[in-house]
Amino acid sequence: MTTNASVGIVTPRKIPFDTPLALENGKTLPRFDLMIETYGTLNADKSNAVLICHALSGNHHVAGKHSAEDKYAGWWDNMVGPGKPIDTERFFVVGLNNLGGCDGSTGPLSENPETGREYGADFPVVTVKDWVKSQAMLADYLGIQKWAAVVGGSLGGMQALQWTISLPERVAHALVIASAPKLSTQNIAFNDVARQAILTDPDFHEGNYRSHHTVPSRGLRIARMMGHITYLAEDGLGKKFGRILKSDGYQYGYGVEFEVESYLRYQGDKFVGRFDANTYLLMTKALDYFDPAADYGHNLTRAVENVQAKFFVASFSTDWRFSPQRSHELVKALIAAQKSVQYIEVKSNHGHDAFLMEDEAYIRAVTAYMNNVYKDCQ
Amino acid sequence: MTTNASVGIVTPRKIPFDTPLALENGKTLPRFDLMIETYGTLNADKSNAVLICHALSGNHHVAGKHSAEDKYAGWWDNMVGPGKPIDTERFFVVGLNNLGGCDGSTGPLSENPETGREYGADFPVVTVKDWVKSQAMLADYLGIQKWAAVVGGSLGGMQALQWTISLPERVAHALVIASAPKLSTQNIAFNDVARQAILTDPDFHEGNYRSHHTVPSRGLRIARMMGHITYLAEDGLGKKFGRILKSDGYQYGYGVEFEVESYLRYQGDKFVGRFDANTYLLMTKALDYFDPAADYGHNLTRAVENVQAKFFVASFSTDWRFSPQRSHELVKALIAAQKSVQYIEVKSNHGHDAFLMEDEAYIRAVTAYMNNVYKDCQ
Repeated sequence: MTTNASVGIVTPRKIPFDTPLALENGKTLPRFDLMIETYGTLNADKSNAVLICHALSGNHHVAGKHSAEDKYAGWWDNMVGPGKPIDTERFFVVGLNNLGGCDGSTGPLSENPETGREYGADFPVVTVKDWVKSQAMLADYLGIQKWAAVVGGSLGGMQALQWTISLPERVAHALVIASAPKLSTQNIAFNDVARQAILTDPDFHEGNYRSHHTVPSRGLRIARMMGHITYLAEDGLGKKFGRILKSDGYQYGYGVEFEVESYLRYQGDKFVGRFDANTYLLMTKALDYFDPAADYGHNLTRAVENVQAKFFVASFSTDWRFSPQRSHELVKALIAAQKSVQYIEVKSNHGHDAFLMEDEAYIRAVTAYMNNVYKDCQ
Repeated sequence: MTTNASVGIVTPRKIPFDTPLALENGKTLPRFDLMIETYGTLNADKSNAVLICHALSGNHHVAGKHSAEDKYAGWWDNMVGPGKPIDTERFFVVGLNNLGGCDGSTGPLSENPETGREYGADFPVVTVKDWVKSQAMLADYLGIQKWAAVVGGSLGGMQALQWTISLPERVAHALVIASAPKLSTQNIAFNDVARQAILTDPDFHEGNYRSHHTVPSRGLRIARMMGHITYLAEDGLGKKFGRILKSDGYQYGYGVEFEVESYLRYQGDKFVGRFDANTYLLMTKALDYFDPAADYGHNLTRAVENVQAKFFVASFSTDWRFSPQRSHELVKALIAAQKSVQYIEVKSNHGHDAFLMEDEAYIRAVTAYMNNVYKDCQ
């Protein structure tokens, strides 16, 4: 389906913003950096730019590799590249690490200019609206008045939706994939357990673990292991791991016994090595708080009334984190507000993670939609 | 539907067994106690006895109160009592705390007769088969050759099923409610995260926390909070808590904000005060290991071929821990093996916990079935 072509070796750039940013929580960031990567070429009238918004643990490294030795490519390399659904021979694609992230953009690991020390726990809780605001400043910096498309899966899809509401004239198309117009009670509950695992880790030190030379690795690991279960579907998990044991017969102890345990613990351990706990906390809060309809009397149709973008919405049959029903809510509101929307419900056994996978019907649908986006921006 | 009548004030009894018990893991318990409660009167030919098997965190205290001041009645007081579905005016009802439990039966908190010290982490991992074996010794002690019914929800239902396979001639009826013939991969995954939360708690001390005068309360709390989400359905959670906040507006911090967070944390804290972490660990292992078909070439129909009991199987529409589909597997196997089975799928928004609730259709179905059990044992 997709080609093997890649954007090749890419180099991230750190863009400084020395204008203060007023946040939704009332605080102001005096300045900030955004770490970005771009692929493809911005055309003369700057109409072919596509913004990729990341989910909970993503970053700016969407496609390609940082060096020839890199084992893995960017997190959406199957979607973004030459000849790929988001075709870098047609589009100027921008990936960024969100504010509050831990991969180079200003966040808990950055120096607080007011104290000269790392923000740590003092980094403010940012929201999806704040991210859109900062991303608009990035668009200004890049000279992009209007995105050909804003694209995102999961929490990334929430940013795409918020863009169309906050800055309707600056988005031609929004691709909202495996997302939801707000979290369910169960979603919030899982986030709270994840946060509690981190907050109650004795190595957390109220978020100032780095000055204590520790990392709340147990808590972060548990949060990720639990999160991982919610990203996957029993269909896929069962097919992949079933009840297969690592060794012959039961061990009657608490070591690794089932393959699925080994897999989960590996995922948890790997995450601890690459992700910051304070960033994890604030990302889950951004998820919890996202509720664009709240500003419009809890009426999602009214929330999207002034939207100018056309929408592509996709959900996955076994996604129980953001089930197809959650996408239906958005699609219904868009239709009720007489907006243009294409919707696909992809049959998949990969659960929520399906948005990162190479399901044929899904890839074909995004490819077809992006063809229209391209025609629109010519 | 059910009456307000109660079995009244009840007193648990500790029954000592001084015969060694050979466990499935190859170890032998030199002796053990089982804490039990009984309600109603055993008839002359001892044909009206009903065994209630408990789930992960249950115990022998099924019905009634221990004193007039008791705030809460036993865990299945709505099901067991005079005039209730499991009618103590008709049946002699036996509740017990399972081996490995923390409510009086021999378990991690008991003295190891071989060392004179608490078992703690040395208490062997017991299985559903081991429980049935110990429960059969209890039946012998009580002079009960054959149970009129063995009844259980969730892990309790697994014991009821195992009884019919291990000791087919000793069970007239099995009521298997909100259960499954084995855990799914996702079920095992959740159990593993719960265990990891406990095992990596620095206060766990490899299970010997009591000799260190600590309790792995953080881990146990996280395990319970996560477990609780899996017991409930979004339907019920959403109706009860939605996105309701404890105070006006977002706090942009990590304290309690949403009602559902407050509820979950309360459940977690309460559990830590009443439950032993080593017991939690071994109960989850008993769940993971349960797989009666494994002894029969992974063929559940063959596993139930020699069953003599008649079955009542119930599932709940929004139970995603042990979904109706899991009950269907059992019902299909029983039908294929030409056994008698009545099945009800109850529409409920209480998720897995529905088996403890007073849904009218459910209560009516159990009442009707127990009427037949009563006729059968006359």
